[in-house]
Amino acid sequence: MDLEHVERCLVFAAHPDDETLGPGGTIARLSKQGTKVTVVIFSLEDRGFSGAKLEENVLELRKKEARQVAGILGVHENIFLEKLPEGDIAICDECIRLIRKYRPQIIFSHFHEQKSKDHRKVSEIADEACCKASENVLPDLGKPWQTSYLYYYELTNLFTNPSDIVDITGTIQSKIKAVKSQTSQFALLPGITEYLLSLAKVRGYLIEAEYGEAFLLSSLIPCKH
Amino acid sequence: MDLEHVERCLVFAAHPDDETLGPGGTIARLSKQGTKVTVVIFSLEDRGFSGAKLEENVLELRKKEARQVAGILGVHENIFLEKLPEGDIAICDECIRLIRKYRPQIIFSHFHEQKSKDHRKVSEIADEACCKASENVLPDLGKPWQTSYLYYYELTNLFTNPSDIVDITGTIQSKIKAVKSQTSQFALLPGITEYLLSLAKVRGYLIEAEYGEAFLLSSLIPCKH
Amino acid sequence: MDLEHVERCLVFAAHPDDETLGPGGTIARLSKQGTKVTVVIFSLEDRGFSGAKLEENVLELRKKEARQVAGILGVHENIFLEKLPEGDIAICDECIRLIRKYRPQIIFSHFHEQKSKDHRKVSEIADEACCKASENVLPDLGKPWQTSYLYYYELTNLFTNPSDIVDITGTIQSKIKAVKSQTSQFALLPGITEYLLSLAKVRGYLIEAEYGEAFLLSSLIPCKH
Amino acid sequence: MDLEHVERCLVFAAHPDDETLGPGGTIARLSKQGTKVTVVIFSLEDRGFSGAKLEENVLELRKKEARQVAGILGVHENIFLEKLPEGDIAICDECIRLIRKYRPQIIFSHFHEQKSKDHRKVSEIADEACCKASENVLPDLGKPWQTSYLYYYELTNLFTNPSDIVDITGTIQSKIKAVKSQTSQFALLPGITEYLLSLAKVRGYLIEAEYGEAFLLSSLIPCKH
Amino acid sequence: MDLEHVERCLVFAAHPDDETLGPGGTIARLSKQGTKVTVVIFSLEDRGFSGAKLEENVLELRKKEARQVAGILGVHENIFLEKLPEGDIAICDECIRLIRKYRPQIIFSHFHEQKSKDHRKVSEIADEACCKASENVLPDLGKPWQTSYLYYYELTNLFTNPSDIVDITGTIQSKIKAVKSQTSQFALLPGITEYLLSLAKVRGYLIEAEYGEAFLLSSLIPCKH
Amino acid sequence: MDLEHVERCLVFAAHPDDETLGPGGTIARLSKQGTKVTVVIFSLEDRGFSGAKLEENVLELRKKEARQVAGILGVHENIFLEKLPEGDIAICDECIRLIRKYRPQIIFSHFHEQKSKDHRKVSEIADEACCKASENVLPDLGKPWQTSYLYYYELTNLFTNPSDIVDITGTIQSKIKAVKSQTSQFALLPGITEYLLSLAKVRGYLIEAEYGEAFLLSSLIPCKH
Repeated sequence: MDLEHVERCLVFAAHPDDETLGPGGTIARLSKQGTKVTVVIFSLEDRGFSGAKLEENVLELRKKEARQVAGILGVHENIFLEKLPEGDIAICDECIRLIRKYRPQIIFSHFHEQKSKDHRKVSEIADEACCKASENVLPDLGKPWQTSYLYYYELTNLFTNPSDIVDITGTIQSKIKAVKSQTSQFALLPGITEYLLSLAKVRGYLIEAEYGEAFLLSSLIPCKH
Repeated sequence: MDLEHVERCLVFAAHPDDETLGPGGTIARLSKQGTKVTVVIFSLEDRGFSGAKLEENVLELRKKEARQVAGILGVHENIFLEKLPEGDIAICDECIRLIRKYRPQIIFSHFHEQKSKDHRKVSEIADEACCKASENVLPDLGKPWQTSYLYYYELTNLFTNPSDIVDITGTIQSKIKAVKSQTSQFALLPGITEYLLSLAKVRGYLIEAEYGEAFLLSSLIPCKH
Repeated sequence: MDLEHVERCLVFAAHPDDETLGPGGTIARLSKQGTKVTVVIFSLEDRGFSGAKLEENVLELRKKEARQVAGILGVHENIFLEKLPEGDIAICDECIRLIRKYRPQIIFSHFHEQKSKDHRKVSEIADEACCKASENVLPDLGKPWQTSYLYYYELTNLFTNPSDIVDITGTIQSKIKAVKSQTSQFALLPGITEYLLSLAKVRGYLIEAEYGEAFLLSSLIPCKH
Repeated sequence: MDLEHVERCLVFAAHPDDETLGPGGTIARLSKQGTKVTVVIFSLEDRGFSGAKLEENVLELRKKEARQVAGILGVHENIFLEKLPEGDIAICDECIRLIRKYRPQIIFSHFHEQKSKDHRKVSEIADEACCKASENVLPDLGKPWQTSYLYYYELTNLFTNPSDIVDITGTIQSKIKAVKSQTSQFALLPGITEYLLSLAKVRGYLIEAEYGEAFLLSSLIPCKH
Repeated sequence: MDLEHVERCLVFAAHPDDETLGPGGTIARLSKQGTKVTVVIFSLEDRGFSGAKLEENVLELRKKEARQVAGILGVHENIFLEKLPEGDIAICDECIRLIRKYRPQIIFSHFHEQKSKDHRKVSEIADEACCKASENVLPDLGKPWQTSYLYYYELTNLFTNPSDIVDITGTIQSKIKAVKSQTSQFALLPGITEYLLSLAKVRGYLIEAEYGEAFLLSSLIPCKH
Repeated sequence: MDLEHVERCLVFAAHPDDETLGPGGTIARLSKQGTKVTVVIFSLEDRGFSGAKLEENVLELRKKEARQVAGILGVHENIFLEKLPEGDIAICDECIRLIRKYRPQIIFSHFHEQKSKDHRKVSEIADEACCKASENVLPDLGKPWQTSYLYYYELTNLFTNPSDIVDITGTIQSKIKAVKSQTSQFALLPGITEYLLSLAKVRGYLIEAEYGEAFLLSSLIPCKH
């Protein structure tokens, strides 16, 4: 991954804060250099609310917060996958369509070894969509597009051997600001900003940078040379 | 692991700072409550020196530093395994002898999924010694002793799913002080105290404590109930 | 796991005999010492019948047998999860509700490396419920509760390295009696009592007890110290 | 697996060309020696079409091609699992029924470490059906039958250590002919015949044969001796 | 593995009782039907003695016991690999020489996921020898020979999914008799005969036989068809 | 890995033909574009001879052949690690010294999941050297150097999911010519050129190239961005 030359990047997130908690600093760094970053938010069975009152308008609230985050991190576009009637295949098709439309060089997605079932599910759908998007099938979903790099980001289940560390010293403040703007999540994630700052230091240490974000390269799509 | 009732604890460390970098806060906490902690340092092919001059007396220097650390963390006894002439079996025998002599309820050891070959090797020897020590064999090495819990600690290759987190909020300062006292390692590990503080925050987050240390329980020795 | 101090224990079972075949002896031992044991039976697509006639009333029959078993093992309460209309999420929610209601220190569940798809599915749902129950989410399902230990029990896919063996010498007879009381399963599992007695001997051997049951500690929920 | 004595063989294929691309040469060899080979084609959400026009009659077209392939490879019977209304359990039941009806000594199925979700799903269903078919349950689906060997075949995700290589020197031409007869797939799989010839050479090399096919023996069903 | 047609079989054992504890019943069954079974005993650093007095003549004593066992199980020949001066390569060469000399259709060896380091080491050497023996190299060690099946046997680390179960109902008594004849091991392995009988019942259950032994097929050497 | 910008590349090979059989086409492609390729040949216990006569001068002969290969593939320098007296540590030190001297952006090495013990050993030593070379230790072995990419190449144990495929359509002929020039290996590897051509086609298929070579990116050294 040569970050400097990435023109288009797609991020898959199960909930409308995973894109910040995971690759938020990298998104901000890419955006600053001119990469067009699109975030696809699944909102699969969104149940991340902590108070009964919040429930009824949690989706609207989180969409609003996601838009604030987009402003802070420099996300070009947020796409919300509303609950689709036909099940997983329809969601996967929609992801294929988006990959073919946005033609990203890099995709950031959830890792499959995650405690959260939602995250694992998004990980699986994104893997499948990423492969299928590059094959000469399903022409009604657009022209085949092969993403060069599929990366997994980390949240609380840390990688033992990350394959890549991105220096986010220049954008850690944006990441923290973005997290702080998602006020609906505060009760759920006490201490999250401290956690993220510390994790960024832990990851930066591996590359002698002040702050870093860790990724794991998928080998689902072999890279062409 | 019910930390309160641990009377005797053994720590295996490849080099004379791993016991601090890994389970240092836990050692200090155990020691404070009265647990007798013994640290066994392998010094296997000690090559952790950064300057040519240091080389000739690096072993002596690091022993001295290990003794300082012992004072800070409350380690009861440091044991240095000098290079033994007969190879791995002699080292393993010595470890069996020590386990049977000190009869620990808990052993802390290196994890085998480590980049460093020294760490992997200590991990393997400790595993073997831990098992053999409990069997009715090798009577010249002492009476059989079954350790109740064998835990692996982490350094830079982090556990994706740690099985245990120890709250070290009360002893993080001792850990950091101990690290800072090992001045011979400064050139090798720039930024190590920041790293350790951040990692302790990252691990504490999982149990809602300020600072924590993560461990992975081995299932080599099944726990009796 | 310090069995003596367990006040409340929850057991997840795919079918109404798995709680006996798996951790039956441990349940009886816990119950004898005063632990309140609750068994949650999924009855997911119950198809464990061997004769056409049995089919129509197999669910009723097995419930009746489960109640007999409860009497023999000292199970405090049996909970049957009737087929719920809304699919997996509803079942998972119900499990979260039960965990938060019964607040167990220990959960026994199926292991995910099982040939039977039903067992794998229960394993996955229980894992998810166990994690989610401890998070500050879904307030309508009760107050967050963190289970200290999640253990997997074994049936016919044996653990290569069990992390815990429970001595069931004092309750093996209850386990066998409980199995024998489930007469509807005899045609399906010829030789099952011999099998269970032998397996208990095999597992007891590892801790020098006459009879034992083997478990594997999950590291999904890190244990706090 | 003693190929000479196999009387009945079942092949599970997600799409109506997988039986050719995977074990096609072995099918032809078995058929030549008198083994009755039955191919079960799932057509799960068949989406393997490359042009919009093709879509409407793709299923009919592929059935026709499957029948041509059957003639070339000597497949005794093709079974198409139409989309069943009740979901996975109904499909699995149908597979159990087929295994009990055809009583194969050998089953060839997809491997679960496959990029394609369809292939993974067929792999999982076939595993489950294979186990359940041998148990004394579900009498309305036929008499229990234990398949002696369950083998996985490879497509593009190659086995690092195949357990078995079948010499297909005598039938590689039939395999290639069969592939060429599935004209609807040409646009999707450019260069597929070259690929298959080369892979057969690569696999033959391991047993000093001109052409081979690689398989991995499943240990789901322990083989009786 | 078609047991009936095996003419020659080789068994690798780290210590002179592993061949009994592991595949003893299978050896006896093979021997009864006329298969020539050769047992290669490594005696790598033999330390399996429980009393100081025993130590000096433990090797002689165990050789004597191994010969008794050979008589009971029908082992054709026992080969003791004396400690060789040149290290692992010399031992591996000797194993290659033996494989090429005895030309077994089946090899039984230790499994590599074993707590005991000796067992793991024998497993590794046997794997290597088995592969190299079949290659067109090292002509001074004999003519290349490819063993058809390499199987691992189990001791106390049980297979979760054994690939093969051998019915040893007819020879379990010989196995137990053989174990009982190794009197020097009694102090080390209290309750071993009960353990073995129970494990044999547990394994027999999987194939509806009274007693069984479990094996895992290696895929190191692909089987030719 | 951006092949175009690689100035220096190091290849580790257990025997003096592995660099050809594995990444030979990639070496030739790199060399053609101006990359300086250095090949380090271990000749660990070289036993790859098939006839008794050959044995005495096999090392000399293979060195000569390695030099021919170097000419064909455009290798800049061949380094032979003669058997070193002090064992593995000395070999690893020598590798660290070479990495620090040649400062490669890319290292190609053996994969650890290989049947051949020699290959696994070289893989382990190269991993260790690669990590240690980048640390601020062992100053007498040169200045620290961090290799950007460590790749494993494949021989006969194929990758299920290769992370990278290099198009070697322009250099496959050089690879084949290089293999053919190593006449001493012909008896050992009958059909090797056919095998390599076919494997290159199989791997090229994944990237729609005529010929390819597959690699697996190591995550031992996280890539900095």
